[in-house]
Amino acid sequence: MASDVLMKKLTQAILEQTITKRANATHKGDYGRILIIGGTEQYGGAVIMNALAAVHSGAGLVTVATHPSNFTALHSHLPEAMVTDYTQDLTSFIRSADVILIGSGLGEQLTILTTTLSSVTPEQILILDGSALTLLAEHQLNLPDARVVLTPHQMEWQRLSRLEIAEQTPENNLTALATFPAQTILVLKKCHTQIYTENDSFELTIGGPYQATGGMGDTLAGMIAGFVGQFHVSLENAVLAAVYAHSAIADDLARERYVVLPTQISAELPKLMHRYAEKKTDKL
Amino acid sequence: MASDVLMKKLTQAILEQTITKRANATHKGDYGRILIIGGTEQYGGAVIMNALAAVHSGAGLVTVATHPSNFTALHSHLPEAMVTDYTQDLTSFIRSADVILIGSGLGEQLTILTTTLSSVTPEQILILDGSALTLLAEHQLNLPDARVVLTPHQMEWQRLSRLEIAEQTPENNLTALATFPAQTILVLKKCHTQIYTENDSFELTIGGPYQATGGMGDTLAGMIAGFVGQFHVSLENAVLAAVYAHSAIADDLARERYVVLPTQISAELPKLMHRYAEKKTDKL
Amino acid sequence: MASDVLMKKLTQAILEQTITKRANATHKGDYGRILIIGGTEQYGGAVIMNALAAVHSGAGLVTVATHPSNFTALHSHLPEAMVTDYTQDLTSFIRSADVILIGSGLGEQLTILTTTLSSVTPEQILILDGSALTLLAEHQLNLPDARVVLTPHQMEWQRLSRLEIAEQTPENNLTALATFPAQTILVLKKCHTQIYTENDSFELTIGGPYQATGGMGDTLAGMIAGFVGQFHVSLENAVLAAVYAHSAIADDLARERYVVLPTQISAELPKLMHRYAEKKTDKL
Amino acid sequence: MASDVLMKKLTQAILEQTITKRANATHKGDYGRILIIGGTEQYGGAVIMNALAAVHSGAGLVTVATHPSNFTALHSHLPEAMVTDYTQDLTSFIRSADVILIGSGLGEQLTILTTTLSSVTPEQILILDGSALTLLAEHQLNLPDARVVLTPHQMEWQRLSRLEIAEQTPENNLTALATFPAQTILVLKKCHTQIYTENDSFELTIGGPYQATGGMGDTLAGMIAGFVGQFHVSLENAVLAAVYAHSAIADDLARERYVVLPTQISAELPKLMHRYAEKKTDKL
Repeated sequence: MASDVLMKKLTQAILEQTITKRANATHKGDYGRILIIGGTEQYGGAVIMNALAAVHSGAGLVTVATHPSNFTALHSHLPEAMVTDYTQDLTSFIRSADVILIGSGLGEQLTILTTTLSSVTPEQILILDGSALTLLAEHQLNLPDARVVLTPHQMEWQRLSRLEIAEQTPENNLTALATFPAQTILVLKKCHTQIYTENDSFELTIGGPYQATGGMGDTLAGMIAGFVGQFHVSLENAVLAAVYAHSAIADDLARERYVVLPTQISAELPKLMHRYAEKKTDKL
Repeated sequence: MASDVLMKKLTQAILEQTITKRANATHKGDYGRILIIGGTEQYGGAVIMNALAAVHSGAGLVTVATHPSNFTALHSHLPEAMVTDYTQDLTSFIRSADVILIGSGLGEQLTILTTTLSSVTPEQILILDGSALTLLAEHQLNLPDARVVLTPHQMEWQRLSRLEIAEQTPENNLTALATFPAQTILVLKKCHTQIYTENDSFELTIGGPYQATGGMGDTLAGMIAGFVGQFHVSLENAVLAAVYAHSAIADDLARERYVVLPTQISAELPKLMHRYAEKKTDKL
Repeated sequence: MASDVLMKKLTQAILEQTITKRANATHKGDYGRILIIGGTEQYGGAVIMNALAAVHSGAGLVTVATHPSNFTALHSHLPEAMVTDYTQDLTSFIRSADVILIGSGLGEQLTILTTTLSSVTPEQILILDGSALTLLAEHQLNLPDARVVLTPHQMEWQRLSRLEIAEQTPENNLTALATFPAQTILVLKKCHTQIYTENDSFELTIGGPYQATGGMGDTLAGMIAGFVGQFHVSLENAVLAAVYAHSAIADDLARERYVVLPTQISAELPKLMHRYAEKKTDKL
Repeated sequence: MASDVLMKKLTQAILEQTITKRANATHKGDYGRILIIGGTEQYGGAVIMNALAAVHSGAGLVTVATHPSNFTALHSHLPEAMVTDYTQDLTSFIRSADVILIGSGLGEQLTILTTTLSSVTPEQILILDGSALTLLAEHQLNLPDARVVLTPHQMEWQRLSRLEIAEQTPENNLTALATFPAQTILVLKKCHTQIYTENDSFELTIGGPYQATGGMGDTLAGMIAGFVGQFHVSLENAVLAAVYAHSAIADDLARERYVVLPTQISAELPKLMHRYAEKKTDKL
């Protein structure tokens, strides 16, 4: 299927442009208050992977709203994150967040999603992942007036866009995205992930099948949350940089591993980010 | 006791033949949906070791059906795996799995075993380990019409085959295996593990007594699940490769360790598999 | 805003002066019995980070009084620490401690704070952190007759001192500190942390924005507890050394990391302390 | 206080004599079935450290009987160990064990101790540590007819022997030990740990104050359990080798650490043991 859309290929330039060296007189409040919502009893690992990625990417403060049965495992990985029961009222948590990531391992928790959608405000960034996307499609929910990022894989995008996977061409994807609120960013996860904005489209040319393992998407969603919370050059740039960094680390780890685990990617994040922040400094 | 059966000696060629470099346009669904069933309150470590081995061997998606008291420890090791309560109906989980591994640390949970045996379908791979083998023997249960792998140690094989350990010669083992459904594969764990198929038998000549520690078999069972879920050259080859890789890693770790822990073997898997996938590529 | 107070700049000399090589005929009782009180269900990570820092800094015995839901995650990180339910009577625990650190992740647990304040004795060291400082300010509680260390960030110090952040000059801080019991030490956490004693003030010139992440202060509080429990040259010196060591490790880790996690600082403590204890020995 | 007893100084020869290379045709049953009993809700870390030491020293099978609240943290560290609730009947567990270690973090659980004392049999090895020693002294319990190892620190030995610490000379210790059943081995933990047998006494000259931290004794007790379960040259030799190895590793780690954590010692065990097993082989 030939395409008229010329997708921009992402290169490491996006990391150099986005990952800035931190200014000295800054504090954790400057690097994003992230609220992660998800993780049923069965899928608790998803929010652990979200949170590992967000904290390692440098998020200032991370709170995880999840099923209480997941608190201990989360803290075993990450005492740096705070927790709260997602069946309780989340309004005050949502209000004080800069970035809300909802959906990884959320299962059928529709009420939690609808409450979140009705609580976010225009200046907040809302990332919808995993089960949240399926619930959105099934219940034909409207996206709120906020800065929205959608991170579906191809089947979830089919549910959202009504485009069969075979029909998910750049043209069709852009047309479908236009039916969502303006400025919504679409991260379409596939063999080579694509990112669509209102006027532009981008293609990842790195990454590989060593990433084909459960939890890879949860880690990406957590990285996007971490990046958009601290890099304010533009929402688009922060998302693009997170997507690129995720596969760049995987490629690097795959030089000596048959499969790359999602948690290994998070562990490597601070070092990759350091390399690119320094590169930028060198150039200036 | 002289033997007329000439057992084939496993060499690293089995790794080169089996561990293929992944094709680019693949996703996690291509690398096996594994369901692990086991782990009472007392033996929860067994399914943790199963799952660590399966995930590190590159399984696409791993779900662990176990006693709920094991959820948190499992997620502390491995947020990449999903969990479910094994006392609830497992039918839908079994139906959507490519590979079912049942028995490590299963204890006396007979109902869970019988439900599983009656739910699997011919195209599925069913691996029976540990307590499942003892229950099978004690209750004289029939194996289902599926692609079955049995992983007994010598005492468990005695219970299943009615062969005393001293009588477990290759001839006798092959004869006993013939009483099980055709195509059942027997992995007989012992000092040098032996693998029997309908028409063939293989012997491991590597490995050593530094592997004589609790949990070693649970790790092997998890590796077999991971390998058979992704390497489709033949069920036999995938099983043989898993058995060989398990002891090859142990030998390597034992160069500087008096005892090798099961969890250390899993941690090394991605690197060993990478080395053999690359070897193969070099040759083509 | 010009200042008449000349703040002393902390250098690594404080580590050489404070971290002494341990005498041979000593036992764990010589290195401080630390009681850490804090950690609601939501903020359990805070006391885990307190305890990791205290144990890695060489504290003899560490007990954590916290919400029982935090016991397992704490032990997953640190079997070296003991636990107790902070809703039970803590009197005997307080009585047998050399150092009490209260407040990290304590939330609204006012009763626990007031009981602690009324139980400490003059020879004990009491460190007040996080929520304890906010409760102290909100409820206008009096500090007990003990050797007190306060570790507020700028907003907490505003609540305690009634000094707006912009008014927190060295002069004003010293004046405000004079309204607290004599010998109280103030660790004012900010971009470059400042330490005030009755007659002196010190400024940290190391550290950086890679430390701007949740939990950094909990780790510092735990290190202060560990240091004051074992280095008896003076309370002031022990506090100064802990503050300096915290950022010295962060600087070191930041040479190859964009963000430094609090738990990574604790893990590095034994090596940094070794280097300075040896330096001192070399000089004698 | 001059002494007429000439204590033998332990050297690394005890490791070379004791740690034998494993024979090929052996399995986990040959390396000891260890039952560890201890760990109240408050002191659960103690049995975790016991078990880490036993498993890393090469024990064949390790079961931990403890308060159920400790199961998850134990499995988070060590899926290789099995668990059981220590408030349930332990008779069958005791019966099937080769070595029983009771007392680390046991607190006031007198009934568990008396049941254990009345269940052990003469061919079993019983190691009494921590709270078990205090309960033994307080309740004037008799030791059973078994192969007993006592691991008190000086205060616990005072309670057991009625010897004030200042009176704990080699002569007095030997005299006091003679009031216990013949063949009881005493490991008296102090600055330089001493080991007493019916006819002999030994002194450790290695180790140092970097070991003065909570949990060090729990790790030693677990190592003794691991060593006596697998090295059958003599009970005495196995105990002596464990004591020596514990401090040899600590000395090694202390070359670059101010304080050595108990769990770090366990992690190093397989490598130290390998070095000495190889040395022996080289000599033969």
